[in-house]
Amino acid sequence: MSAAKPRLPDAAAVRAAAARLKGKAVPTPLLSSPRVDKQLGCSLLLKAECLQRTGSFKFRGAYNALAQLGDRERRAGVVAYSSGNHAQGVAAAAELLGIPAAIVMPSDAPKIKVENTRSYGAEIVFYDRYAENREAIAARIAQERDAQLLPPFDDARVIAGQGTIGLEIIADAAARGMKLDAVIASCSGGGLVAGCAIALLDAMPGIAVYGAEPEGLDDMRRSLASGERVGNDPAARSICDALLAPTPGVITFALAQRLLAGGLTVSDDEVRDAMCFAFDEFKVVLEPGGAAALATVLAKKLDISGKTIAVIGSGGNVDRAAFAAILKR
Amino acid sequence: MSAAKPRLPDAAAVRAAAARLKGKAVPTPLLSSPRVDKQLGCSLLLKAECLQRTGSFKFRGAYNALAQLGDRERRAGVVAYSSGNHAQGVAAAAELLGIPAAIVMPSDAPKIKVENTRSYGAEIVFYDRYAENREAIAARIAQERDAQLLPPFDDARVIAGQGTIGLEIIADAAARGMKLDAVIASCSGGGLVAGCAIALLDAMPGIAVYGAEPEGLDDMRRSLASGERVGNDPAARSICDALLAPTPGVITFALAQRLLAGGLTVSDDEVRDAMCFAFDEFKVVLEPGGAAALATVLAKKLDISGKTIAVIGSGGNVDRAAFAAILKR
Repeated sequence: MSAAKPRLPDAAAVRAAAARLKGKAVPTPLLSSPRVDKQLGCSLLLKAECLQRTGSFKFRGAYNALAQLGDRERRAGVVAYSSGNHAQGVAAAAELLGIPAAIVMPSDAPKIKVENTRSYGAEIVFYDRYAENREAIAARIAQERDAQLLPPFDDARVIAGQGTIGLEIIADAAARGMKLDAVIASCSGGGLVAGCAIALLDAMPGIAVYGAEPEGLDDMRRSLASGERVGNDPAARSICDALLAPTPGVITFALAQRLLAGGLTVSDDEVRDAMCFAFDEFKVVLEPGGAAALATVLAKKLDISGKTIAVIGSGGNVDRAAFAAILKR
Repeated sequence: MSAAKPRLPDAAAVRAAAARLKGKAVPTPLLSSPRVDKQLGCSLLLKAECLQRTGSFKFRGAYNALAQLGDRERRAGVVAYSSGNHAQGVAAAAELLGIPAAIVMPSDAPKIKVENTRSYGAEIVFYDRYAENREAIAARIAQERDAQLLPPFDDARVIAGQGTIGLEIIADAAARGMKLDAVIASCSGGGLVAGCAIALLDAMPGIAVYGAEPEGLDDMRRSLASGERVGNDPAARSICDALLAPTPGVITFALAQRLLAGGLTVSDDEVRDAMCFAFDEFKVVLEPGGAAALATVLAKKLDISGKTIAVIGSGGNVDRAAFAAILKR
């Protein structure tokens, strides 16, 4: 049995997303450091997406999706499930557009993430992560309210929104007269890396785009290698709490198969080192999942010598205590 | 006895500095957060100058000064004294321009600042902050080598370079259609706040520009209040290692008297709170001195209600252990 082929977002969809996001999303800076380049023997560009509204790239996809809803749909509202960055992205985008939002979050979610989501005016619906299915709960609420369910990654509008990061990288690199060899993005369900790959390969056909995943949670890398969507061992753990999706999405995998050069994996300690490196050298706060792409370069998981490489620092939502513990190792 | 009136840099000098710095200094982003604004009841803009080359604004003034040296002066080299950020700024600017640099630094300067300064190829000369006179040591070295002495703040070229931050704030605020009520900059010798005030008051005559100083090290505030340059109690201490200058400069004070709305002071705990706030809400690393201006707003040292206020996050050079300890309070 094979499902109908999904309709894939294209470069025009990413450009349309950029037009919607203009003045709403932060055009985040592409940071560089001559000293870092000397140390690594490459030209490294860090897209500081941790400086995005809500502290992660998720605002882009959420806003691009919600901005396309009609009046009736907007009044009915949006429902999402997430314990982290997608929750905040959807809540902030919905607030900006005047759309009621309900976010299904685990009852034991970190208080700070619940509070942040609530600060954008969203209704929080708690569930028991050990006894209940969040997707089923979200689907039921959406049905009861006739509201839109907004998936975290497997949605053409969400993917196109995340892809606007790729457009900004292209423009900033061009403004500096730099020719990119590779771009690396953290990968959970694959929305960020797939969206960016659409924009990047449209503008720069020879560029290598990689997804960065935690060791043991490298479902995208293994799916690409095997040619079909495979899942992770449910027992696998990582400090990258934003990169725990069990399998690639249907749409994101179809795009990844067509566009990605492959997947790279990093250990938790390599991620911690990258968080410290970003603190020392770039003065930005990266959460574990937000440092995975940087970690692949620092740990030389690909050939970086003499290359020009952009990595996406995709988020910075990390608790003070957790960050302090990593700095003090 | 009265000294000859110093020649003061003007808005044209700041614009000339901006032309020299184009493509050399990072045009740092002006960050904002709708959630923060809602919480504080004002529009807050954070100029993330911690993302500048060398991790602080000091690169701007140093490069603007050194780029104006002739061939013979460049060959003879430059000497500077600094507890850290000016050291790195001078060292990086000198390296970029191919000028030999010797930096006189206190033996208790933060390790990261010493190591970083050395990484730009500068020679480091240590002295005892509480027993020796750094200015005399630097002057002696400069004389021995026939080298240029580059003061950390009391130099028209340095002040004009720092003022380019003001120009960027003006441009970014205008691009967002925002009218600024006040701009607050950390103040040690006064180069940053004086330079920015030149640019800001030239473009926006009604704007209020304040210097932010640590309690007990508020020489600029007291000098402005008394109408003459006064010094700090030599026993005064602060975690703001970048804001320990004993008195305002001659040029910076003359500018401050003419341009500043006044001085604001903050306690070490208010600075720590601001560092944590920048971590939580803006995902940037601010060193203690770099968080002083933000601290004045958070601690409501001025009337912020309904106002649009830009604060300069002037630097991010802080050791991991020190930052971790502040996060974990």
